[in-house]
Amino acid sequence: MATPQARPIRFAAIGLDHRHIYEMTGRLLALGGECVGYWTEGEPQPLAGFIKRYPHIPRVSDKRRLLHDSTVQLILTAAIPCDRAAIAIEAMRAGKDVMTDKPGCTTVEQLGALRRAVTKTARFWSVTYGRFETAAVTRALELVGLGAIGRLVQTIGLGPHRLNRHLRPAWFFRRDAYGGILCDVGCHQIDQFLTFTGSKNAEIVSASVGNFANHGDADFEDFGEMLLRSESGCGYARVDWYTPDGLANWGDGRLTVLGTDGYIELRKNIDIAGRPGTDHLFLIDHKSTRYIDCGCAERPYYANLIADVLDRTETAMSQNHCFKVMELALQAQATAARLGG
Amino acid sequence: MATPQARPIRFAAIGLDHRHIYEMTGRLLALGGECVGYWTEGEPQPLAGFIKRYPHIPRVSDKRRLLHDSTVQLILTAAIPCDRAAIAIEAMRAGKDVMTDKPGCTTVEQLGALRRAVTKTARFWSVTYGRFETAAVTRALELVGLGAIGRLVQTIGLGPHRLNRHLRPAWFFRRDAYGGILCDVGCHQIDQFLTFTGSKNAEIVSASVGNFANHGDADFEDFGEMLLRSESGCGYARVDWYTPDGLANWGDGRLTVLGTDGYIELRKNIDIAGRPGTDHLFLIDHKSTRYIDCGCAERPYYANLIADVLDRTETAMSQNHCFKVMELALQAQATAARLGG
Repeated sequence: MATPQARPIRFAAIGLDHRHIYEMTGRLLALGGECVGYWTEGEPQPLAGFIKRYPHIPRVSDKRRLLHDSTVQLILTAAIPCDRAAIAIEAMRAGKDVMTDKPGCTTVEQLGALRRAVTKTARFWSVTYGRFETAAVTRALELVGLGAIGRLVQTIGLGPHRLNRHLRPAWFFRRDAYGGILCDVGCHQIDQFLTFTGSKNAEIVSASVGNFANHGDADFEDFGEMLLRSESGCGYARVDWYTPDGLANWGDGRLTVLGTDGYIELRKNIDIAGRPGTDHLFLIDHKSTRYIDCGCAERPYYANLIADVLDRTETAMSQNHCFKVMELALQAQATAARLGG
Repeated sequence: MATPQARPIRFAAIGLDHRHIYEMTGRLLALGGECVGYWTEGEPQPLAGFIKRYPHIPRVSDKRRLLHDSTVQLILTAAIPCDRAAIAIEAMRAGKDVMTDKPGCTTVEQLGALRRAVTKTARFWSVTYGRFETAAVTRALELVGLGAIGRLVQTIGLGPHRLNRHLRPAWFFRRDAYGGILCDVGCHQIDQFLTFTGSKNAEIVSASVGNFANHGDADFEDFGEMLLRSESGCGYARVDWYTPDGLANWGDGRLTVLGTDGYIELRKNIDIAGRPGTDHLFLIDHKSTRYIDCGCAERPYYANLIADVLDRTETAMSQNHCFKVMELALQAQATAARLGG
């Protein structure tokens, strides 16, 4: 899919508690967006890096200045996960669309309130699921759509992350704040499963979470897994916070897409002891085994999102899908067996 | 572990219905064993290849000649899976140890009879689980045992297989004959999980089987998956019969062993679009990311098995473990959700 031509929008950021705000802001700026300002409480760890990257963006002392600015079309938030829903709802009520860091919310009550706010305000609420940041995923989806591996049977997603304890604020280890590992980093996996299988819904067949390496933080979960199923395919996903320091990347994210006539493996962030760079795709079909470098593939989410703001479309992601992902992530989290400890 | 010095034994083969009999026979011959003869019913597909590889081994027209030969210490069987238990029991009653192709049996009734026969005859029944044939697994077990990845948290095993329809006899597609995909090729995965986690038992948390690509064979299962759990770790395994023709190997078998302080990936049979050969191990810990070629690692099963025949030891595998693997495989198979169709 070709990236639509960029058209400028005006946006603002509220809540800079996670470093993801760098990418969220930077990608919109690169597409011609203008960030009119940001508001955040106190001095969260990512603040210094934000100021360094974007010294021209002014900080405001009252977030209402951003919410009441009629020229602002979109609000970004990377606040503490449990606070994101309230910020998003406030923004939508003020007439703004919302792009939120993942997870978009941490409770079913928040999700219900977000759904009602979207309906009432006719604004959109978009969660930047990890798929949007991986060019190899764009290419893999194209290949699957073209029938390159026959009928899709199953996906296996691995989402390891580096803990980087020294960079993490206290809320990172508080389950009520980050929402649990399947809510937090598991939502990407659900998004990916639904997208690759073309499913509108899925059954959480089994789920578990555990704390095996961080007993000092009783509330933290460093391991999670889910078995998913829909009418269009099977899925398994594992997430964890164990990435060892000897890996030259924050996480050896993988995706294996199994079809009746071939399979695709993505090494999203690194090809261990192999090729340099990111976005490695391997396609094996009845004819051959091929390596495809996806470094040049599109990541159309941000450009599509801008179009959605301006045109009131749903090209970046359907609103229903966005909600369903968080609904299932919260369901997996709530029903997960608790292991370790 | 050093391979014990080979000591000659005398063995015979009963039932040549699966090509695995080539390797089973060949490895014992290479270690100094003497195959006194074989018996098989009719003209199974692997027979011609067996005669070509081992023209010196005589065929006998009555299997009792082998069973009543007091110099024969070990009986091999790669009969049709549902017939293996009866052959094994007959052999043990005749005073022989047994090495059987996997799966070792196809029903819980057979398994019970095998357990009783082992107890009564004091002979052993050994199933050649796939782990024994992969040198990289030997090396990975050593590394895990040395604490190379910290506390073991989880294993993920992928066991794709090429269907090779033109080589398969009718029984291959009959569920009562091959036992179902989780019994047949799933037992390797259970063996691997129990071994890596050091577990004596496991819970089959969830299992499913499906037929997504072979609707003409209603009894066939071309997909299976299991979620496993024990007090020592979590496990997920997927098996299938979809290996596409463009892969230069029968199956891209993988194992990922996740620890709190590192992880190991095995590319057992092939490194897609990568290094030549088999037995590729990648170790990532807090210090570095390393590739380890395990082509030279030991595969001690056969030498240990010969020692077990001669010394009445259990060095190749404990009898309890061998039974437990098939017990769990049959349990997974029996409880699996049936998908596709």
